[in-house]
Parts: sequence; structure tokens; C-alpha cells
Amino acid sequence: MSEYHAPIDDMQFVLYNVAGLDEILALDEFQGMDRELIAAILDESSKFTSKILDPLNRVGDETGSVCENGSVTTPPGWKEAYQQFVEGGWNGLAFDAERGGQGLPWLVATAVQEMWHSANMSFGLCPLLTQGAIRALESHGSKAQQDTYMERLISGEWAGTMNLTESQAGSDLAAIRTRAVPENNHHRIIGQKIFITYGEHDLTDNIIHFVLARCTDSPQGVKGISMFIVPKFLVNEDGTLGERNDVRCVSLEHKLGIHGSPTAVLSFGDEGGAIGYLIGEQNRGLEYMFTMMNLARHAVGVEGLAVAERAYQHAVEHARQRVQGTAIGSRERVAIVQHPDVRRMLMTMKSLIDAMRCLAYYSAGVFDLSIRHTDDVVRQYNSDLLGLLIPLVKGWCSESGNEVAYIGVQVHGGMGFIEETGAAQYLRDVRITPIYEGTTGIQANDLIGRKVLRSDPEILERFFTKMSQTVVDCDKDNPHLAPIRDALMVALKHLRRATEWLYEIGRDNPSVAAAASVNYMNVLALTVAGWLMLNMAIDAAAANGANSGNGKHLTAKLISAKFFATQILPRAQAHTDAMIDSSSVALELEEEQF
Amino acid sequence: MSEYHAPIDDMQFVLYNVAGLDEILALDEFQGMDRELIAAILDESSKFTSKILDPLNRVGDETGSVCENGSVTTPPGWKEAYQQFVEGGWNGLAFDAERGGQGLPWLVATAVQEMWHSANMSFGLCPLLTQGAIRALESHGSKAQQDTYMERLISGEWAGTMNLTESQAGSDLAAIRTRAVPENNHHRIIGQKIFITYGEHDLTDNIIHFVLARCTDSPQGVKGISMFIVPKFLVNEDGTLGERNDVRCVSLEHKLGIHGSPTAVLSFGDEGGAIGYLIGEQNRGLEYMFTMMNLARHAVGVEGLAVAERAYQHAVEHARQRVQGTAIGSRERVAIVQHPDVRRMLMTMKSLIDAMRCLAYYSAGVFDLSIRHTDDVVRQYNSDLLGLLIPLVKGWCSESGNEVAYIGVQVHGGMGFIEETGAAQYLRDVRITPIYEGTTGIQANDLIGRKVLRSDPEILERFFTKMSQTVVDCDKDNPHLAPIRDALMVALKHLRRATEWLYEIGRDNPSVAAAASVNYMNVLALTVAGWLMLNMAIDAAAANGANSGNGKHLTAKLISAKFFATQILPRAQAHTDAMIDSSSVALELEEEQF
Repeated sequence: MSEYHAPIDDMQFVLYNVAGLDEILALDEFQGMDRELIAAILDESSKFTSKILDPLNRVGDETGSVCENGSVTTPPGWKEAYQQFVEGGWNGLAFDAERGGQGLPWLVATAVQEMWHSANMSFGLCPLLTQGAIRALESHGSKAQQDTYMERLISGEWAGTMNLTESQAGSDLAAIRTRAVPENNHHRIIGQKIFITYGEHDLTDNIIHFVLARCTDSPQGVKGISMFIVPKFLVNEDGTLGERNDVRCVSLEHKLGIHGSPTAVLSFGDEGGAIGYLIGEQNRGLEYMFTMMNLARHAVGVEGLAVAERAYQHAVEHARQRVQGTAIGSRERVAIVQHPDVRRMLMTMKSLIDAMRCLAYYSAGVFDLSIRHTDDVVRQYNSDLLGLLIPLVKGWCSESGNEVAYIGVQVHGGMGFIEETGAAQYLRDVRITPIYEGTTGIQANDLIGRKVLRSDPEILERFFTKMSQTVVDCDKDNPHLAPIRDALMVALKHLRRATEWLYEIGRDNPSVAAAASVNYMNVLALTVAGWLMLNMAIDAAAANGANSGNGKHLTAKLISAKFFATQILPRAQAHTDAMIDSSSVALELEEEQF
Repeated sequence: MSEYHAPIDDMQFVLYNVAGLDEILALDEFQGMDRELIAAILDESSKFTSKILDPLNRVGDETGSVCENGSVTTPPGWKEAYQQFVEGGWNGLAFDAERGGQGLPWLVATAVQEMWHSANMSFGLCPLLTQGAIRALESHGSKAQQDTYMERLISGEWAGTMNLTESQAGSDLAAIRTRAVPENNHHRIIGQKIFITYGEHDLTDNIIHFVLARCTDSPQGVKGISMFIVPKFLVNEDGTLGERNDVRCVSLEHKLGIHGSPTAVLSFGDEGGAIGYLIGEQNRGLEYMFTMMNLARHAVGVEGLAVAERAYQHAVEHARQRVQGTAIGSRERVAIVQHPDVRRMLMTMKSLIDAMRCLAYYSAGVFDLSIRHTDDVVRQYNSDLLGLLIPLVKGWCSESGNEVAYIGVQVHGGMGFIEETGAAQYLRDVRITPIYEGTTGIQANDLIGRKVLRSDPEILERFFTKMSQTVVDCDKDNPHLAPIRDALMVALKHLRRATEWLYEIGRDNPSVAAAASVNYMNVLALTVAGWLMLNMAIDAAAANGANSGNGKHLTAKLISAKFFATQILPRAQAHTDAMIDSSSVALELEEEQF
């Protein structure tokens, strides 16, 4: 079993050269933070994740979380690790310093969270969900609610959950049936929720559930959904824990992966109704949920990246150690890393990871600017851009994470199919990422609907122009950059072709546009990733030219960007051709003909 | 949990219209066999697989085969099912009627085996391995060896295994260390073999191991490997079972999938040496292994197809039942099969399956002609063609089977990640197919090396010409066929471009050719599959025009072929571009830079 090493050099290069961390640190809000501080944080996080979380990953998979009589026991060692996690202050990285958080940019938190999920994705899901709860509270909770819950959620002393899904209401939240009956200054919540990540566990003394439910006098459909706080234990006025609330864990799911993460069926109100506190206004629950969505979806994309990175490290270690066959034109037996097809696999993994990291970090930087820049215009610009980027980070990084984990198994040959090897766990774990927080189809639909067809076309056009400008500005005589630039130029051409077609078909035939949506998402994601990789390469070439003394690291970046541009980016054309020629063919079969 | 239904209509259409079963049935050897007989066999097989094997698939996954003190117990119900399998005569379908087989074409056996693996891939592996053993015996065994083992292997009363892999010898069989020490009229075999499928089990009274080992006076490397028969129980002269041989099961592997199939570590000679009987001549073991390889690799490609078909049926049933969201432009809640992106996913699955079936069946027909046609020239032509096709069936169908099973999980949304749903098992089971019997990289290497660069270029050229001729002959005014024909024309252009480049680079730089090999395999497989789909569509259009009364089935074929041509086939260009532009980039990184 390989050990996780946080790829800090790669991370820092992307943080500063692609995602613009310097610009973000220059904001008033981050006064006093500098590159040195960030380096120290990344270094500490690297130690914590590789020494504490990574070694608990396997036991998490093998033992899993177990439910007995409504109580959930996490795998051996996890409770202690969580305690250290809280003590280290990792839970509240990007939250309000006045509430006990570290007040760091989300961009930095993103790099740290990549480490959590690389080391132990199942563990990382607990703070991930708590983060969503904190965001809901800070955006929509009352002062009193914030005072009661925020600090202990930010510290991690308590955990948070998001309760959306019901058996008949998955992607379609309009179908939610959980009821909220008003009573004094609270409601009684009655219903059953499924797929609740960390819905019950033993890591914290209290769990604060954020629950979507329908008030008795609310309309059917999406406009009748409200959001409630339902603590596992009620909280007394002095902050101590009071009575057990009427919510219990019925069972845990038996899943393909993330066995350590308890996925609960929660029953609310078996004994009359769980006490719930309305957040914000009645019937605006779904709207509130959407304000958290960007961050949650971004985080899932980061999971795709993180598991990919871990699978890559595992595969590289195996490829270096496993001696098999001889090198071409020689009789010497060699490690399989020497075989060209193994190289191709490792390079595919590496360049996809670099591209995912560029996309995920760049988007995190845009998120910071969208909420923290002092200039309204800049905030709005970045908020619009973020809307385009989030479906790409969630949709494309999660799917690419699966591609990388799949290749990771393949590099191991027969050993990859044996569970003890560890490569298969990454494949199983990462399989959830294109599903939860909105499937890839939902992301693509959001992209073409809300973000393209129903948005100001100027937003997309501005972004395209920005990407094209990089092509124009790029030194075309630099032999390292030319193939990357040329490939991006071709991809941009296809992206424009795909976009024009989409505007047209979206007007005439929304069903065909929907059938084309995932292809469009892929074209846009590949092109944006290709553009960011060119930016990375331009900086790497400049630094290399300046003899920074870090030559091997920099040339690796150039080669990875070239590989991506020439081996992966050609897919953009295949997706565009598929879209334009024949998206309607997907709809021709009658239902009975399947 | 859905029930398996063998897609007999689809199978028959491909058997007769794509793979030329009529021509094969016309061979002397198959006198007396006609369409009616074949239909009866497929019908019986359909019943057996859906009623007996399919219901045992889940328990196979959940309980798995278990090893205790060297004895392996297969999952509950499997022993009885195997008994029925033997009684039904399914084990010896395509083997010599004089030895108790059914003497059917391999093409028909392929369709039957697709059913086994769709219903229960783990179960199907037992007869699959026995088949390999029978092939070894009938090709290279002595008359006495054949007399002792053949009939009971063909009936299935005994099972066979293939013992190749050792921990240091996976893809690289040159590294085999298991020793064979001569003694009287046999050898003593000493060594350890791993990854032995059905290496030990309780389905049969005896297990006949076919073992690669190195004689004490043999050279190192591939030229010093011999093949031995090592029965679990020695066989007395009268055919009764004698003493237990010195081979035992050390343990079973804990695998990602195919839990029902026991994957054993076998130890030979712990008590002095297992008795083994040399097959054919000393030092020709690897050569003998290769004569079986075509069939074994073909069978694994069929597994990819089979699991894909099962995953598709499961996904279609879910998509028809699961109500979620409203149709575009309506307020009516609909089953998700109505959503365009779900349509796209199901069509991708369906058209990939149709394409895989065309490729796998067509190749099986070529195999029959290569061994059973009376004309030497025809046999040689088909043998050459088979050499090209096998790496495609094994490589591309197994990878595509994974793609389909992956989409199958996605169609289920969150439910797909829950093991009880069953979709995840297909993903786990099929993951082995691009690995065993030679990884995808090994297939691609065999294709570009032995089959292209080191073969008579005329073989490839003749095949290309044949495909091009179909394009020329195709009625380009038929609106159903035109888009399929046009897409194939484009793919053929890229295939020629890729091939010319390959010949050139293969001469100058074999390492770069090797780095390009998987891309080339994909270009060739996609194009051949596209060509076969056009053949299928031409016949479907003709039959439809003739008002055969089977219109819905025929239009479904046309739509599937069109979807494949326009949505999947464009990948051929992406693979070609990737190959030609930059295969060398895969080799630029130094080992330490990974």
C-alpha cells in the first residue's frame, strides 16, 4: 500500500499561476496573510492528512460504519482522528474568524480539502456536509440561530447534515413529502429522508440536520418547500445539550464505495414529530439550498480530483516497483513504468489531474472574488463566471476522476482487481461523485439551461474572448507552447460551433438541446481546462527560461500540458460532432423499442 | 431486481445478417443443422439461463466462494445448477460429437455463452476455463490423454483450469519458475500459481489443471516452458478416480467482482511434487497456449458484451419504472426514460451493445470458417482476418463493456451506488475483462506488432478494401443508411491515415508505435464495428422495405446503427489525432518526474 504525499509543489503552482491567489490575498479581508503563511498551512495539512487520515482509509473501507439499534459506530480510529481534526482547527478554514474560523480564502481551503479527500474521502465527507450547513446558517439563519449553532459547527464540535432526498424525491425535489406542522415557536417535522451522508455517527456529541420539508399550508411543488434546523439533541438556552429529538437512524446503506461514510435513512417524527426551527422564510427552502449548491458541487468536483490524485500516486508506485518484461530493443527486465503503454496510461492520469486541478482551483478563486471583492462589478463578473464553471467542476472533474481511477486499476493489471491492493477502492469510492449533489445530467442541464440559454449571452462571449486572447498573446514561436496553443485554438473553434448550434436548437427544440447537454458540458470543460493548462504552461515556460532551479518540475508541467492538449483535447471535436450531427437520434426510439 | 431475458431477436439478426450463419451451416460438418434447430437451442438456452443461472447471480456476489482448509465451497445453489448445466449438455456445445459434444459452430456457441455471462458471469467462467482445457487437449494431447480426459471434460463431469500466472510472471510468462522434474513416465511439478480461475471448487468430482512449468533441463525464458496435465485426483486405468495429487488450494483472492468465481492460489508439490503429464513436446508450452488464446480472448470479449447487455436490461427497467420530474414542456410527471439525457445514456448503451455483438459474432463466424471450411484458401484468409479481429474483440468489447456498466449505474442515480440495486455488481464484475487473458495494452501490442507491422500488409489492405466496398455499394439515397455510410467513410479515412502513420513510425520508432497502440486498436475496432453496423442496417432497411411485419424491431436497428455512426464513431478521429500528433509525448517525462 502506497503512502499519500500531498503534491504541494503542483498545488502551489496552480494556486498562484492559474488561480490567482496573490490577487485574492491582496483583498482587504485577507490582510496579513501571505505566501509564507499559506505554505505553512499546506505543509501542516499535508502532515495531518498523510499521517492521520490516510492510514485510516483502508479500515474505513473494510470495516465501514455500522448501525445497531439506531446508533452508528464509525471505523476504529476515526473518532480519535476526528478529535485531532477539530483540535487542528481544520474544520473552519474558510469561515468567519469572529465565529472561530480561520478566515482563509476558499481557494486555500480547496487545496486543503483536496488533501482530505485524497487521503480519506469517506472521512472528508463529514466536514464537507458540516460546511454546507454552516453556509446555510450564515446566509439565511437568524442571529439567534447563528449564535446557537455556528461556533460549534465551525469548530467541528458538532457536525451538520443536509436532508433533501426522499425515496420518491431524488433529482426531483418538487416531490418532497416530509411535513412540517407549526407548533408554538417551532415546527414538528414528520417524514423519512434517505441517502443522508453522516446522518448518524459517533464523531460528535450533536448533529445538526438541515431538513427540507413542506409546511401544512404550503403549495405542492418546488414553491412549497421550507428549510428547517433539526438538532439531534435540542440545545438548551445556556448552550448545553437537552432532550433527544424525535429523529432516528433506521439503517445505513450498503454501498459500492465510501464504506466509512455512513449513509443513513433517517426517520423524523416516529413519536409525534421532531422539533424543527424554520430557517429564513417559509417556502424559500429550495432557493436557500441553491445558495449552498455552488460550494457543495464544487467540493464534489474536488473529490473527483482528489481521488484521482491518490489513484495516480498508487499506480505510479506500483509501476516503478513491478518488474515485468523487457524494454523495447533490450533484454534487460524493467519496471513496467518503462513500457510505452504504461507511460501513456500514467500520462493520461497525470494530465487529467493537472487539468482538473486547474479547473477546480481556478473556480475556487473565482468564488472568492465573487463573494469577497470590494468592487460590485468585479463581484458580479465573477459570480456570472462561477455559474458557468460550477457545472464543469462538478460534472467534468467527477467523471474524469472515474476515468483516472479506472486507469489506475488497469496499471496494476491482475493485482488491480484484488481488493488488498487498494486501487479498486478508489474506483469504488469515486463512483458516487458523478451522482450525488446532482448527477452529471443535472449539471449539464443546469449549464445549458440556466447558464447558457437563459442567461445573458454576453457572459459566455466575454469568457470566450478571454480564452481567445490568451491564444493571441501566446508566443507562437516557443516550441513548448506552440502545440498547446494550436490545440486550444482548434478546441475553441469547436466550442464556438457547438455553442452557436446550441443557441439555435435551444430555441427550436429544447428536447434535442437536452439530449446534447452532456456533450456540450464536455466540450466546454475540455476547452476551459485546455485554456488553463496553456496558462500554466506559459508560466512554467517563463519560469524555466528564468532558470528558477526547479527545471524538472517545470518541464513536467510543460509535458503534461502538451499531452493534455494533443491527446485529451481532441475529444472536444468528437463531442461537438456528436452533438451537432445527431443529438436528435437519441430521441428517435419509442419507449417500447428499448 | 430485473430478470434476464435473452435478446434472441437481436442475436438471430446478427447471427444471420452480420455473421453469416447460413454460410457456416452449409459446411459439410454441420449437415442436418438448420435455422429451426438453432432457434430451438437458443430458446432452450434462454430458458436455462434466465430461470436457473440468473437467479443465482446475486447470491454468488453476496456469499461468494469460500475456502476452508483447502476446500472451496461455491455459493448456495450453484452445485445443483451446475448439475443441470451438465445434464443439459451445455458444456460441450461446439466440441466433437464423437466425444460427446454437440458439434455446433462456435458462432452458435458464442450466442449461447453470451447468455451464460449475461445471467451469471461468475458461473460461466467454470465452463469457459474447461473449454480452454479441451482445446489444448484436442490440439496437442496424445490419443491416450484425449481418451482419458476429453469426454468427461466435454460433458462437464470434470472441470479444467489454465495455470499460467505466478507472482513474478503475469503478462510476462518468460519469468515462470514452476519446475517440472522428470520421473518415470511423468513429471513432478513444484511451484506456486496465482489467479487460477476455478482452481478449486466443489462443482465437479475432479479438476484437470493445465499447467505451464519449466523442465529442469529447459532454458530460461519463453523457450523453456512446457505444458502439463495435473489432475486433482489421479485417474486409474479403468477411468475411476485414484489418489489425491499433490496440489492444494492455499487461499482464494478477495476481489472487486466475480465473487462467485473462486480465484485460487494453488501450491504444487508441497509433499514432494504433483504428478504431471507432459502435453506434446517439451518446451513448446507457450506455443500451445497461443493456439487456445484466440478462443479464450474471444470469450472474454463476449463477457464484456454479455455483462453490458445485462446492465442495459437492468437500466431500461429502472428507467421505465422510476418516475421523476416532468417532461419538457409539460407538467406531467414522467418515468425518467422520457428524459432526453437518460435517452442518450440508454442509446449509448444499446448502440455499443449492438456494435459489440456484431463484432463478437462476426469474429466467431470467421473463426468457424478458419477451422472448418474445406477450402485451404478460405481457411487461411479467415485465419488471417481472425488474427486482426481477436485483439479488437478482447480489447474493445471488454473496455466498452465497462463503459456500458458505468452508464448503467448512472441511469440509476443514487440507487445505482447501493449494492442491493444490482447495477453496481455489473460494474464490478466486468472490470476484470480488460485485464485477464492479456490486458488491453497486451492486445493492442499484439495488434500493432504481430498482426500489423510484422504481417503481410496485404491482409490489412484486403480488409480495408472490403469495408470500403460496402460504402461504395450502399444506396446513398436511402435516408436511413446515408448518415451511417457517411460516418463510416470518414472513419475509414482516419483509419487509413492512422495505419499509414503506424507503418512509418513502426519502422523508425517502435516505442512511439507502442505508445500509440491502444489508440490504434480503438480506431480499428470502432471502424470495423461501424462497418458491421452498416451491414446490419442495410439488411434491416431491406427487410423493413419488404414489410416483414417486424417493423419496430427493424427500425430500432436502424436507429441504433445511426446513433453509433454519429455519436460513437466520431471518437475514431479523436484517437487518430491523438496518435499522430503526439504519441511520443507519452514518453517525454523522465521516470522521476511522475
